[in-house]
Amino acid sequence: MKVWELGEFALIELIAGIVGKPSSNDIILGMGDDASAWRTEASIQIGTTDILIQDVHFTLKTVTWRDLGWKALAINISDIAAMGGKPSYALVSLGLPPETEVDSVAELYRGLMEIATKYDVDICGGNMSSAPVAIINLSVLGKASENILTRSAALPGDQIAVSGYLGQAAAGLKMLKSGLEFDPETSAFLREAHLRPCPRVAEGQVLAQNGVKAAMDLSDGLVSDLAHIGKASHVAARVWVHRLPIHPLVNAAFPEESLGLALSGGEDYELLFTARSDVVERVKGLMPSPVTVIGEILSGEPGQVTLYDERGEAIEWSESGWEHFRSPG
Amino acid sequence: MKVWELGEFALIELIAGIVGKPSSNDIILGMGDDASAWRTEASIQIGTTDILIQDVHFTLKTVTWRDLGWKALAINISDIAAMGGKPSYALVSLGLPPETEVDSVAELYRGLMEIATKYDVDICGGNMSSAPVAIINLSVLGKASENILTRSAALPGDQIAVSGYLGQAAAGLKMLKSGLEFDPETSAFLREAHLRPCPRVAEGQVLAQNGVKAAMDLSDGLVSDLAHIGKASHVAARVWVHRLPIHPLVNAAFPEESLGLALSGGEDYELLFTARSDVVERVKGLMPSPVTVIGEILSGEPGQVTLYDERGEAIEWSESGWEHFRSPG
Repeated sequence: MKVWELGEFALIELIAGIVGKPSSNDIILGMGDDASAWRTEASIQIGTTDILIQDVHFTLKTVTWRDLGWKALAINISDIAAMGGKPSYALVSLGLPPETEVDSVAELYRGLMEIATKYDVDICGGNMSSAPVAIINLSVLGKASENILTRSAALPGDQIAVSGYLGQAAAGLKMLKSGLEFDPETSAFLREAHLRPCPRVAEGQVLAQNGVKAAMDLSDGLVSDLAHIGKASHVAARVWVHRLPIHPLVNAAFPEESLGLALSGGEDYELLFTARSDVVERVKGLMPSPVTVIGEILSGEPGQVTLYDERGEAIEWSESGWEHFRSPG
Repeated sequence: MKVWELGEFALIELIAGIVGKPSSNDIILGMGDDASAWRTEASIQIGTTDILIQDVHFTLKTVTWRDLGWKALAINISDIAAMGGKPSYALVSLGLPPETEVDSVAELYRGLMEIATKYDVDICGGNMSSAPVAIINLSVLGKASENILTRSAALPGDQIAVSGYLGQAAAGLKMLKSGLEFDPETSAFLREAHLRPCPRVAEGQVLAQNGVKAAMDLSDGLVSDLAHIGKASHVAARVWVHRLPIHPLVNAAFPEESLGLALSGGEDYELLFTARSDVVERVKGLMPSPVTVIGEILSGEPGQVTLYDERGEAIEWSESGWEHFRSPG
């Protein structure tokens, strides 16, 4: 059945059945009214919004609707994680071609609910509309303590560190786009990395509660994102490329390209952070995922990122990260 | 200059200049980081999200980018108003074809800022992306007292009332689409009604603070929206069509069609509410805009809306309000 055969209002009812009752007692009104309402306490709230557009951010040739639901919420939760916050509520805007299968929309919501349940997020409202392509916009709200992680707090002398591994999401995209085949373990790892990123919420909270001030999530690519921190903090950065944590499966699958994927691939949704070495040392022991020191913050041209190899020689790197609108379309 | 020539990051800087500094001292982080952050107090927060898509909700043939900015925020503020809340923060997601003029984006933001300033809303974050058509998604947060207006609180015996007038937004759309010409006063009135709706925030707060429990904003059309209240409250409704407040300029411009526009036109963003007659009488004296009693709530088939003329005879009305996906595209 197509969504145009079911109609907007029946589709909303179907979705309400998948979303179910809110898990938080703070929610006064969930789906079905003009807006949603919840109780707040005296604290700090974090809000973010991010859109996924068919044939810009994803193609239905390589992603299932369920994975799309997961990813749409994941990238927003990751922004909350990058501030050291804990996500709580999500609002969903959907644009759908009328020919979309109702079952696809149900699958999308099942994917949303999978990650919402995992991260204890309540989907408490939204709206939908017909559209020429599939569009999924999520807005996510979260809570934070007084110590928020920002892009503008890096200081010369800070170490630069990342959680987890780099380049696997871009490697997964490359595999899916090119139809490459690897052994089942590698395929599953790369696929999950691209389609089912796991935002580092627990890690962000460890950072915020243990003295780290500067962080962001890796969405555009390491070099590009580090340049964002540098510009916001008015500092430069030096990265030792041989220290980048590249997963053995990525190195094995793409031996020639793994460094490039780690530097510019983007979408790993790991946390990039900077802090004094004693602070980094402390959080290393507390973080649920591995932490690797990959460079240091310097005084210098804001946003400049210089790469060094294991012999201490500067290397050229011209590929930039992701930026929208950098071609006429 | 096209947005692809300027690029995403320079465009964000340009927008930050238009948005300027937040007016609320509660905002800790506005634009430019992974997410936005603000202080909350122990109260009730309301959240809503709504999307406008080119050639679904608007055409750039009849709307300017500045008006589009106004309207995108207006429809979300209206959802907050319909709950009796006061809007505070907005997050903006933009999808733009790379060929879009940078000046158009600036105009869009100027329109957003015009209404944001009028309603004391801070635009405190967002994201942008390339897209096949223009897409504007707003998420707006607001505050409310304990008394929230919902669609599910109408009771048999309640009077049904509306703020302001009905049908003028649809009349404006009709004028713009058909290229009709009226005297300058009528043209300006109809144009403003369609392109620059003024959400009833003060009115919603009067309702919530003076005993009204059931309300929604008129976006789909009176009959359709009243059916939403009926279904949510498990009641039926009776409307006296000769009592509908239709503006004299609408009656003069569309004498044959004005009743239809008032019943099904939608997008007036007036408030539709129900309450006991003594409560309606009280709020009438307190509301900044006119209040008209147009019918009553009855026990009966949930969502059923029956229309009566001045002779007390039931009249047939087959046109329904707006529903997405009700055709294959």
